[in-house]
Amino acid sequence: MLVVMRHGAAPSEIERVVRTIEEMGYEARPMPGAQRTAVGLVGNDGRVDASRIEALPGVAQVIHVTQPYKQVSREWRPEDTIVTLAPGVRVGGPEVVIIAGPCSVESEEQIVTAAHQVRAAGAVALRGGAFKPRTSPYSFQGLGERGLELLAVARAETGLPIVTEAMDEAGAHLVAEVADCIQIGARNMQNYSLLRTVGRLGKPVLLKRGMAATVSDLLLAAEYILAEGNSQVILCERGVRSFDPAVRNMFDLTAIPIVHKLSHLPIIADPSHGTGLRDQVTPMARAAVAAGADGILVEVHPTPDRALSDGAQSLYPGQFAELVGELRPIVSAIGRTLTPVPARPAGTEPVAVGYG
Amino acid sequence: MLVVMRHGAAPSEIERVVRTIEEMGYEARPMPGAQRTAVGLVGNDGRVDASRIEALPGVAQVIHVTQPYKQVSREWRPEDTIVTLAPGVRVGGPEVVIIAGPCSVESEEQIVTAAHQVRAAGAVALRGGAFKPRTSPYSFQGLGERGLELLAVARAETGLPIVTEAMDEAGAHLVAEVADCIQIGARNMQNYSLLRTVGRLGKPVLLKRGMAATVSDLLLAAEYILAEGNSQVILCERGVRSFDPAVRNMFDLTAIPIVHKLSHLPIIADPSHGTGLRDQVTPMARAAVAAGADGILVEVHPTPDRALSDGAQSLYPGQFAELVGELRPIVSAIGRTLTPVPARPAGTEPVAVGYG
Amino acid sequence: MLVVMRHGAAPSEIERVVRTIEEMGYEARPMPGAQRTAVGLVGNDGRVDASRIEALPGVAQVIHVTQPYKQVSREWRPEDTIVTLAPGVRVGGPEVVIIAGPCSVESEEQIVTAAHQVRAAGAVALRGGAFKPRTSPYSFQGLGERGLELLAVARAETGLPIVTEAMDEAGAHLVAEVADCIQIGARNMQNYSLLRTVGRLGKPVLLKRGMAATVSDLLLAAEYILAEGNSQVILCERGVRSFDPAVRNMFDLTAIPIVHKLSHLPIIADPSHGTGLRDQVTPMARAAVAAGADGILVEVHPTPDRALSDGAQSLYPGQFAELVGELRPIVSAIGRTLTPVPARPAGTEPVAVGYG
Amino acid sequence: MLVVMRHGAAPSEIERVVRTIEEMGYEARPMPGAQRTAVGLVGNDGRVDASRIEALPGVAQVIHVTQPYKQVSREWRPEDTIVTLAPGVRVGGPEVVIIAGPCSVESEEQIVTAAHQVRAAGAVALRGGAFKPRTSPYSFQGLGERGLELLAVARAETGLPIVTEAMDEAGAHLVAEVADCIQIGARNMQNYSLLRTVGRLGKPVLLKRGMAATVSDLLLAAEYILAEGNSQVILCERGVRSFDPAVRNMFDLTAIPIVHKLSHLPIIADPSHGTGLRDQVTPMARAAVAAGADGILVEVHPTPDRALSDGAQSLYPGQFAELVGELRPIVSAIGRTLTPVPARPAGTEPVAVGYG
Repeated sequence: MLVVMRHGAAPSEIERVVRTIEEMGYEARPMPGAQRTAVGLVGNDGRVDASRIEALPGVAQVIHVTQPYKQVSREWRPEDTIVTLAPGVRVGGPEVVIIAGPCSVESEEQIVTAAHQVRAAGAVALRGGAFKPRTSPYSFQGLGERGLELLAVARAETGLPIVTEAMDEAGAHLVAEVADCIQIGARNMQNYSLLRTVGRLGKPVLLKRGMAATVSDLLLAAEYILAEGNSQVILCERGVRSFDPAVRNMFDLTAIPIVHKLSHLPIIADPSHGTGLRDQVTPMARAAVAAGADGILVEVHPTPDRALSDGAQSLYPGQFAELVGELRPIVSAIGRTLTPVPARPAGTEPVAVGYG
Repeated sequence: MLVVMRHGAAPSEIERVVRTIEEMGYEARPMPGAQRTAVGLVGNDGRVDASRIEALPGVAQVIHVTQPYKQVSREWRPEDTIVTLAPGVRVGGPEVVIIAGPCSVESEEQIVTAAHQVRAAGAVALRGGAFKPRTSPYSFQGLGERGLELLAVARAETGLPIVTEAMDEAGAHLVAEVADCIQIGARNMQNYSLLRTVGRLGKPVLLKRGMAATVSDLLLAAEYILAEGNSQVILCERGVRSFDPAVRNMFDLTAIPIVHKLSHLPIIADPSHGTGLRDQVTPMARAAVAAGADGILVEVHPTPDRALSDGAQSLYPGQFAELVGELRPIVSAIGRTLTPVPARPAGTEPVAVGYG
Repeated sequence: MLVVMRHGAAPSEIERVVRTIEEMGYEARPMPGAQRTAVGLVGNDGRVDASRIEALPGVAQVIHVTQPYKQVSREWRPEDTIVTLAPGVRVGGPEVVIIAGPCSVESEEQIVTAAHQVRAAGAVALRGGAFKPRTSPYSFQGLGERGLELLAVARAETGLPIVTEAMDEAGAHLVAEVADCIQIGARNMQNYSLLRTVGRLGKPVLLKRGMAATVSDLLLAAEYILAEGNSQVILCERGVRSFDPAVRNMFDLTAIPIVHKLSHLPIIADPSHGTGLRDQVTPMARAAVAAGADGILVEVHPTPDRALSDGAQSLYPGQFAELVGELRPIVSAIGRTLTPVPARPAGTEPVAVGYG
Repeated sequence: MLVVMRHGAAPSEIERVVRTIEEMGYEARPMPGAQRTAVGLVGNDGRVDASRIEALPGVAQVIHVTQPYKQVSREWRPEDTIVTLAPGVRVGGPEVVIIAGPCSVESEEQIVTAAHQVRAAGAVALRGGAFKPRTSPYSFQGLGERGLELLAVARAETGLPIVTEAMDEAGAHLVAEVADCIQIGARNMQNYSLLRTVGRLGKPVLLKRGMAATVSDLLLAAEYILAEGNSQVILCERGVRSFDPAVRNMFDLTAIPIVHKLSHLPIIADPSHGTGLRDQVTPMARAAVAAGADGILVEVHPTPDRALSDGAQSLYPGQFAELVGELRPIVSAIGRTLTPVPARPAGTEPVAVGYG
C-alpha cells in the first residue's frame, strides 16, 4: 500500500501517517519525491484497513498495490482450476461446456422435454430454477421443492447434471441434495451468509456476477467460498447495469479474458440474462465463446411464448440447435472443443424429442 | 401495458399478440395509428409477465404503464407513512431525524462513549454494526451477538433507540430482540428471503438502496416487506455505483424528491457511505436535508483514526456537533424541525462525554 | 406518443393535456383505462417536443412510441447500406473488413512500415491519427497536416485506403483532401457543427460511439450526417464508460446486433479502445466478429514500446497477423468472408516488411 | 508514477521497465517489496505517457501519483479564483450567484419578460440559448445570431450580464461579441478545438461537465482553457449519465466539495438539466447550495407550457421567486450571502413584470 501525501504536506503530517501504520503493526517506508512524499506500507497481508489512513491530514490518496483477494488469484495458484459437474463434464479445461434449459421449472412435462431437447442439440448440463428471485413479490416465484424433484426426474431420464439456484441457507441445503452444481444468483453475489453456506456444502458452485459488481468484487465474493475450503467455483458473466435502455443489461465480455488473467477459476457467460432478448442471444453466445468463455449458460424453453418467466430471452429449441452448430467452428478456431454430451443413464432409452 | 408493433407488422403478427394477451387472461385492445399499431393490455393487476410478449414477431417494444409495485405507492396510500423508532422519535413527519454512531461496535467503552457523544450533539438514535457485511472475507466482520449486547448497554445508558444491521435470517431474529430498527444493507437489498423474514418480524426496517438499484427496484424491495404485513419501512439513499473514481459512490440525492412523489414511505440519506470521505460528509449531509430527506444516518467515531472499519468516512465528534448546528437553519428554511433528543432512561445521570 | 395520466387525475388535467397537444398541431386521442387514462398523440412526425407536456399537472409519464431518428432507421430503408472505402473495399455487405494501423502517425518510416505490415497480414485499410484529441493539453497532439501528407505517402506505397480523424471544421476540410474516410472520434460524437460539416463533404464517415452514448444517441448523431445528404456512414462501437476500474472502457458488443436490427448502417468495432490493453484486444476482436461486426478497427504499431500514444493497447505486428488467422474460421462460421486485400498501386513493388 | 510488477516478475522484466523509463528521459527507482517489486518514475512533469509501459511483460499495474492537470489545481494556486461576470457579479467568492432564464431565446417579448422576471426575483445574470445543441437534427436549433441580438436587448433593459452557449469556433466569435460569459455545453466538454478557441477569446467561460466525464476529465478540459492563458473559468455540474430511468441525469452534487478541494476554480450547479423535471428542480437547487455550490444556473420561462425546448424542467416565474426565498437562509446557514442584483442601466425605468 502506498500513501501519497499532498504537495507541501507538513513533516508532522507525514510523521502521523508513519506512526499510524506502525500502530497497525506494519512497517512504514517514507519516500520523498520531487513533487511530494509517499509512504509505503510494507508487510501487507491483505488485512490492512486503509480507511483510517485515508482521511488523515495531508494525505492525498491511498493506493492499493496488493490485490484484496488471495486464494482465487493466479498468483496463489498458477494452474487452471477444473470443476467437475459430472463424469466427463469438466469446466475450465480445454473443453467448452454448454448448459441449457428453461428459466423456471414449470411442470414435469416441460422440464423433461426441455432436458431431452437441449441434450439432443449438444447441452451437457441442464439449468432450471426451482427457487426464483424475482424483482416483484407478485411474480411467479418458482415451484420450490417440487421443482427440485422434477429436476431429479429430468436428470434420471437424460443423464444431464443439474445446475439450479439457491436463495438462502435453508434452500441451499435442499438444493445440495439434488443439484450437481449450486447456482448463486446475481442479486445474492454479496450475500455473505449464503456464500459461506455453499462454501461449506462442498458442491460445485456457479457464482453469477452482481449487477454492479466489478471483476474484483466478483473475485472477492468467490474468495468467501474458497475461504470455507471449497474451490469448486465457476464464475459467470451475465451482464451489468447500464445507462442504455436499448439493452436489459450490458454484457461485459471483456471480463472473461480479465478473469482468466487474474484468477485460476473458470468463467462462463450467460447471454440470455446478458442481453435479455432472444434476437441477441445467438450472436452474443458466439461472441462469448470467441472471447474465451469456458462455457455458456443459455435459456431454452420448449414453448417460449408460454413461459412463466423470461420468455423473451428464451431460445426456441430449434434456434438453440442452430447456435450449437455455429459454436463448433468458433471453438475449434481457438483450439478448443465442445464437451461431448454425457451418456444416458443405464436402462433409459433414446427418446424422440417432443415428450409423449 | 402497451405493445408497440413494428412499422409494417403483418396482421397475423398483431393477431398473435392479441391471442397471447387473451391467453394470459387479459383484454387486448388494438389501436391502429398513422405509423404503426399498438395493442393495449387492459386489466393489468401488476402480475403480467411481459416477457413472453416482448419477443413475439413484429413486436417493437413493450411499454409498462402501470408501476410494478403497489402497497408502497402513493396511489395506494396518499398520506405519508410515519415510522416510530421510540417514543417521540418518528420518521416521515415534519421532523427530521439524526441517527449517528460508529460503523462497527468495537467495545463497550467505544459504543457507550459514542452514544453519549452523538446524543449530546443532537442525535436521536444510535447506529452501530454488530454483524458487518465486508467485501473481503479477511476484513473485521463485527462482534456479532456480543455487539448486540453492547448496543443494549448503550441504549440503557442514553435512551437512544438502536438501529443495527441483520445479514441473514438467523441474525434477523437476534437483531430483532435487541434493536429498535433492523437495517438491511445495500448488498442485501434484493435478498428476498431476508426481506420476507424482516417483513414478518414486525419491527421497523431501514432498507438501504442497493449499489445498482433504480428507485423502482428499491420500492419493489420494500414491497416485499409490506407484502408480509409490515409497513414500518424507512428507505435510505446511500450512493450508487459510478464511473468516477473521485468518489466511492455517487450520492443520488434526487432520489429523495422522487421517492416522496412515488411513495408514502419516508426516506433518509447516509452521507457517510454516500461519499466515503469525511471532508464530503458535512456538505452532503446538509445537501440531503435541503433536498428534503426525512433524516440522516451518519458515521461518528470517538477516535476515527483508530476505527476498525470505515475510519475515513467517520466524523470526529466535534465535527458532528458542528454539522448538527448547520442543519438547524436549513431544516427551518424548508419549514421543518430537528426531532428533539429523547429523554434519558429513568435513574441515569447526565454523563460528561468522554466515558470514564 | 402516449401521455399516461396519474391514477385519479382530474378531468380538467386530462383536458389540459388534450388542449396542449392540439395547440402543438397534433391530434389527441384520450383512452380511459381501468386504472388510469392515457392520451395518445397521433400524427407524430418526429418533431414533437414532449417536454412541455411532461410536467403538466396530472401527468405521470410520457412514453415515446416513435423512434426519434428517421433516415438511419431500417423502417426508412430496409436494405443494408454498403459504404465503399476504395475499389473492392466495401463495408456493410457479406465481407468483413479489417482496418489497422498505429494510433498516431509519428514519422514516415513508422507509418509506411506499419502500412506494409498490416497489409501483409490482411488489413484492407490503414488507420493513423494526424490530429489527436487528447484528454490532457500536455500530451502529444499529433503531427497535424504533416501527418496527413505521410498518410498519403503510405497509401501511395501500399494501396490501402486511409481512415483518419478530424476534430474541427477546418481540419475536416484538410482531412477530406487526403483521407478515404473521415473519422469522428468518441468525444466529438455530439459535436453537431462537425457532424454537419462532414455531412456536406460527401466522403465516407466513420462515426465512433461516445463514452456515454446510448445506441439511440449514436443513431441520432448519424442522422445529423444523413440529414445533410451523406448516407456513407459507418458506425463504430469502441467501449463506453463503466464503473469497473478493471477495464479502460466497457466494450458493448451487444450494440452490434441491436444496431443491425434498428438501422441499415454498417457497424464495426474497435477492440483497442474498447479494452485498452493488448492482452484483451485479440479475444475481444474475435468476439466482435462473432457478434456480427462488419469489420474491426485495430491499433497495430511496428514497435509498441516506443509508441507516442496508446502503446499499451497496440498489437505487435506478429500478434496482429495471428489475430487475422483466428478471424478467418470465425467469419466463415457465420457465413461471411474477410475482404481481400486491395491491389498495390501500379508501379509499386512488393516490399519486404521492415522498411528499408 | 509507480509501476507495480507482478509477483515473481523476472529481473529482466524489471530491467526492461527501468530502461524504458530512462529512454523516456526520467529517472527510474526500483523498490523491491515483500510481495513484489515496484519501480518509481521520478521527475514526472505531467507529460509522461504511461501507455507504453503499461503492457510491458511482468507489469501488473501502472499507478498515477501525480494529477494529470496543473494550472487548475489548488497545488498550483491555493487561493480561490474569482470570475467577474459584471461589476458586482463575482463567482467564486463568499457570495452565491443565481443565473436564470429560459432554455432558448424564442422572441424579444419572451426573453425580455424573462429577464425582468428573474431579475425581480433575485437573479444576477441571464441565461438563454441562441445556438442550441439538440440530440435530434429535427428539433428546434435556436434563433442563432438573431438570438444574440435579443439577448443584448434584454441586457440593455435589465442590466443583467448574459451567459449563452457557443457550439463551434465561428459561433464562439459571435457569442464573444455579445455575451459576458461563454458557455460550453456538456456535449462539447471535450471538443478541444472549441476549448482552445474560448481560451484565446479572453472572456469568462462557463464549462459544463460532460455526461460521462469524471471530475478529473472536467478539470483537464478546463486545463485546455487555462493553458491558452484564460483563467476566468467557472465549472458547472449538470448531471451525468445514469442507469436509473427515474431521472434524466444523475445530479452529482458531491462533485462540488471535491472540485473545491482539488481546484481553485469556482463551481456552480444546474439543477434544471441535473434533474430534468420541474418538481425536482427546487429541492435540488437548495441541495446544491447547501453542498457549497458557488451559484446555480436555473431554467425559468414566462410560460413553460409553451416553451420551444425544455418546458418540463423550466420553473414558472413564481416558483423561481419562491426558490430564491428558500435559498437565502440556507446560504446564510453556511456563512455566505446571495449576490445582490446589479443596478439597472442608467436611463431605464423599473418595469412592471409582464412586459407591455
